[in-house]
Amino acid sequence: MAERLITEADLDDLAVGAAILGTGGGGDPHIGRLLAHSAVRTGGPARLVPLEEVPDDAVTVMVAMMGAPTVMLEKVPSAEQVATAVRALARYLGRKPTHLVCAEAGGVNALVPVVAAARLGLPMIDADAMGRAFPELQMVIPTLYGLTATPMSIADEKGNQGIFDTVDNHWAERLARSATIDMGCSAMISLFAMDGPKAREALVPGTLSLCAELGRLVREARAAHRDPVATVVGRLGGVELFAGKVVDVARRTEGGFARGEAAIAGVGGHAGEDFLLRFQNEHLVAVREGVVVASVPDLICVLDAETGTAVTTETLRYGQRVRVIAAPCDPRWHSPEGVKLVGPRYFGYDHDPVRVPAGAHRRTPDSGRAAAEARP
Amino acid sequence: MAERLITEADLDDLAVGAAILGTGGGGDPHIGRLLAHSAVRTGGPARLVPLEEVPDDAVTVMVAMMGAPTVMLEKVPSAEQVATAVRALARYLGRKPTHLVCAEAGGVNALVPVVAAARLGLPMIDADAMGRAFPELQMVIPTLYGLTATPMSIADEKGNQGIFDTVDNHWAERLARSATIDMGCSAMISLFAMDGPKAREALVPGTLSLCAELGRLVREARAAHRDPVATVVGRLGGVELFAGKVVDVARRTEGGFARGEAAIAGVGGHAGEDFLLRFQNEHLVAVREGVVVASVPDLICVLDAETGTAVTTETLRYGQRVRVIAAPCDPRWHSPEGVKLVGPRYFGYDHDPVRVPAGAHRRTPDSGRAAAEARP
Repeated sequence: MAERLITEADLDDLAVGAAILGTGGGGDPHIGRLLAHSAVRTGGPARLVPLEEVPDDAVTVMVAMMGAPTVMLEKVPSAEQVATAVRALARYLGRKPTHLVCAEAGGVNALVPVVAAARLGLPMIDADAMGRAFPELQMVIPTLYGLTATPMSIADEKGNQGIFDTVDNHWAERLARSATIDMGCSAMISLFAMDGPKAREALVPGTLSLCAELGRLVREARAAHRDPVATVVGRLGGVELFAGKVVDVARRTEGGFARGEAAIAGVGGHAGEDFLLRFQNEHLVAVREGVVVASVPDLICVLDAETGTAVTTETLRYGQRVRVIAAPCDPRWHSPEGVKLVGPRYFGYDHDPVRVPAGAHRRTPDSGRAAAEARP
Repeated sequence: MAERLITEADLDDLAVGAAILGTGGGGDPHIGRLLAHSAVRTGGPARLVPLEEVPDDAVTVMVAMMGAPTVMLEKVPSAEQVATAVRALARYLGRKPTHLVCAEAGGVNALVPVVAAARLGLPMIDADAMGRAFPELQMVIPTLYGLTATPMSIADEKGNQGIFDTVDNHWAERLARSATIDMGCSAMISLFAMDGPKAREALVPGTLSLCAELGRLVREARAAHRDPVATVVGRLGGVELFAGKVVDVARRTEGGFARGEAAIAGVGGHAGEDFLLRFQNEHLVAVREGVVVASVPDLICVLDAETGTAVTTETLRYGQRVRVIAAPCDPRWHSPEGVKLVGPRYFGYDHDPVRVPAGAHRRTPDSGRAAAEARP
């Protein structure tokens, strides 16, 4: 794979696809698009470098928004704030970053590196640190490799900045979360400086390309009057868990997170069944008729029943017609260390992970589309 | 005045006097002594430089403990933690500090610079930033001169560190307070880097000498069977407000502070009267028979009725025989900006400052002692 450019024309697909992999979190794609369009129009397209081509002597830094997605809807960050976070980390490191890294797939967090790239004139890596979105900053594959999140920077829109250098990534999360809450429940962070070999080992390759591809597939399916949800299920090697109408949403902004539950009443083949989603920024556990049918670390994605676009946890509302799908995560999340870091028990649920049924495999773009098109 | 050394022999007087000026806060002198004795025994005496002799090209940095004094009693900091905070700020500044500055008079916070001086081999300035103690970090005379607290560092005993660079000193307080709470309600901070001219203008000269002198006066009065409380009142040009027995203490650790109220029932000439102290780490307001008789920014000090040693807000307890005195603060605190920053209204009390009665002036050591000795 070769380096390519992310232009304004790519941003909508990228945001739509990232919101799907964002499993309800990672920010609203509308906000992500607004930010990125403006930055790319001013700063030019962002260069997207394949992970395997990152040189050994690279200084890669992750850049992301931290906070409650519910708040991001009202307090849109600026491109300058994104750049400030990266510059603050660079200053503290005493080294100039060479590549920007996406922390997680998500409507905002897949676009934040694009903004930074356009603003700072740096390439971004076609990868992310999760292959999905998770609510806490230590919840990244690099943590499984013993890599440290800090030194990390944090910046708000008022001009306040901070640096944390902590004994482990849980402490980085704790201190940065408190600062984020003080800063108004959303802040920009830059963290996990890595060299090329570490980045190549510890990141999830191809995530941004996959986001853009998912967005394109959804768009094309809609244009061709095919079922976009089935297209997504096929591409991700997932399963459709439920279809229904949102009948209840209990949501609270707590500890700097958007936490809550949503109840869905079945329609069609699921008529008469009930379904419950539990979330903390991201969908964590899916319960159908009282039985857990999917959970972290696998992906639980809520899609608009007709358009296939992702419904984020902060935009879930009464009356929405949705379809809930599950898809396999990066296999490293199913290691014992991965399950300890992001499995259901970490979030307070007293059960092991419930995985996407065997036989559901992520397919190549062609086979995925074929499968989707074969669906009635 | 010439440079002098702070040796182990000076530390007890320094801690006792600092606790008096600490107005109930600034840390327990027992903890301050423990820390400083150990550091001076290992690192040698600390050089104390008169404020007026600090050279123009100095890089002065303040070092202090931040947090709830109630917690410091259980979680004693280490000298290494003090040094780490200074080193973290120095690294971020990219400059080597030349002088250490005391943030406030207080049983711990007057001794913390001694610890840093012994550990880092740097001189400390005979001054502080308040002439007393206050609970929040923006509450220093340098804020009145428009000087910025940040960049500031923060360090805990586990090895976590942070740097904050904020738009104003209130934001520095807010972010550092949250980090302090996360770190277990006590942390070491280093802040307010200044050059010589700024330090000479914005600090309160002679505070550490005054602390040591107060400690010595109390010790000598006790040895000579004179009244140590009267000695302190005389030296500070204050007034004795009340004498009585502590009959109720309501104390809570809230927002990282020790907050509460103490009720005192009068004895002797005050028999039948009631007295109330309201505090937030420090004593803020004194109410006698329903009338506010003293308030911030002037000093309200609670002393053991017999020994004259300070009773800190965290050691106030039922049955203690105490005498409450008030003394004038640095006059800059009574400017409109000073009153806005540390006056009663900032702390939520709906009244102007109640000052120590006119005629009560801080006297020279000799006249103060004479006055004290003349007391019946």
